[in-house]
Amino acid sequence: MTSAIPDSHRDLLEAPTVGTLTTVGADGYPQSTAIWFLLDGDVIRTSLLTERQKYKNLVRHPRGTLFRVDPANPYRTLEVRADATVDDDPELVFLDRLLAHYSTDRASFPAPTDGRIVMTLTPHHVVTNG
Amino acid sequence: MTSAIPDSHRDLLEAPTVGTLTTVGADGYPQSTAIWFLLDGDVIRTSLLTERQKYKNLVRHPRGTLFRVDPANPYRTLEVRADATVDDDPELVFLDRLLAHYSTDRASFPAPTDGRIVMTLTPHHVVTNG
Repeated sequence: MTSAIPDSHRDLLEAPTVGTLTTVGADGYPQSTAIWFLLDGDVIRTSLLTERQKYKNLVRHPRGTLFRVDPANPYRTLEVRADATVDDDPELVFLDRLLAHYSTDRASFPAPTDGRIVMTLTPHHVVTNG
Repeated sequence: MTSAIPDSHRDLLEAPTVGTLTTVGADGYPQSTAIWFLLDGDVIRTSLLTERQKYKNLVRHPRGTLFRVDPANPYRTLEVRADATVDDDPELVFLDRLLAHYSTDRASFPAPTDGRIVMTLTPHHVVTNG
């Protein structure tokens, strides 16, 4: 059992692509969505709107999992079970970093920018396959 | 809110590819894995080894979610939050159906065939994007 992201699968978190974030709803059903995210040293960060269900789920139950499947090999996967913490994003400094990673910016970004926080996922347990 | 799989996104469950199944561990962290599955009418079925953690999780907490991202469009997704039920698979009739869907058979399948059950995921709430 490890909480480190191994070099062998780090590429799955470095590529600017979507990951599957799963939270747990109040009714006990897992809830999965595709998200943009940024590997920031040894943690994963994303920008969430506080009105969204996944934000509310993580505040109530601060355990979430990011999962990536290698698009070139569906048997090569990375699962990061993580503890979630919330920080403000004053002047949207983090959002700008995230958007730059995806080669875009606030002017081109179609989603709302008001009411955004930084959600940090600190790895608790990392599982790799392939 | 719907528990029906809409025709618009049914292709994401019909293609013989991997889906992300998330269960909830005893420690409260979501656990995600890539699985083979079969859309069987209005339910999703998979074949699990009873020694695997996802099986144990679903027996203890019978709520699991299957998530698919369209490989051709990461903004087109299908999320199926489901109730999980277990059935025996006498003579591995279901496993054979599943393997045939993936164009293989027991002779070529690298995983164990002993101790397998059929896990049925009955949709409780279906969310589509794109």
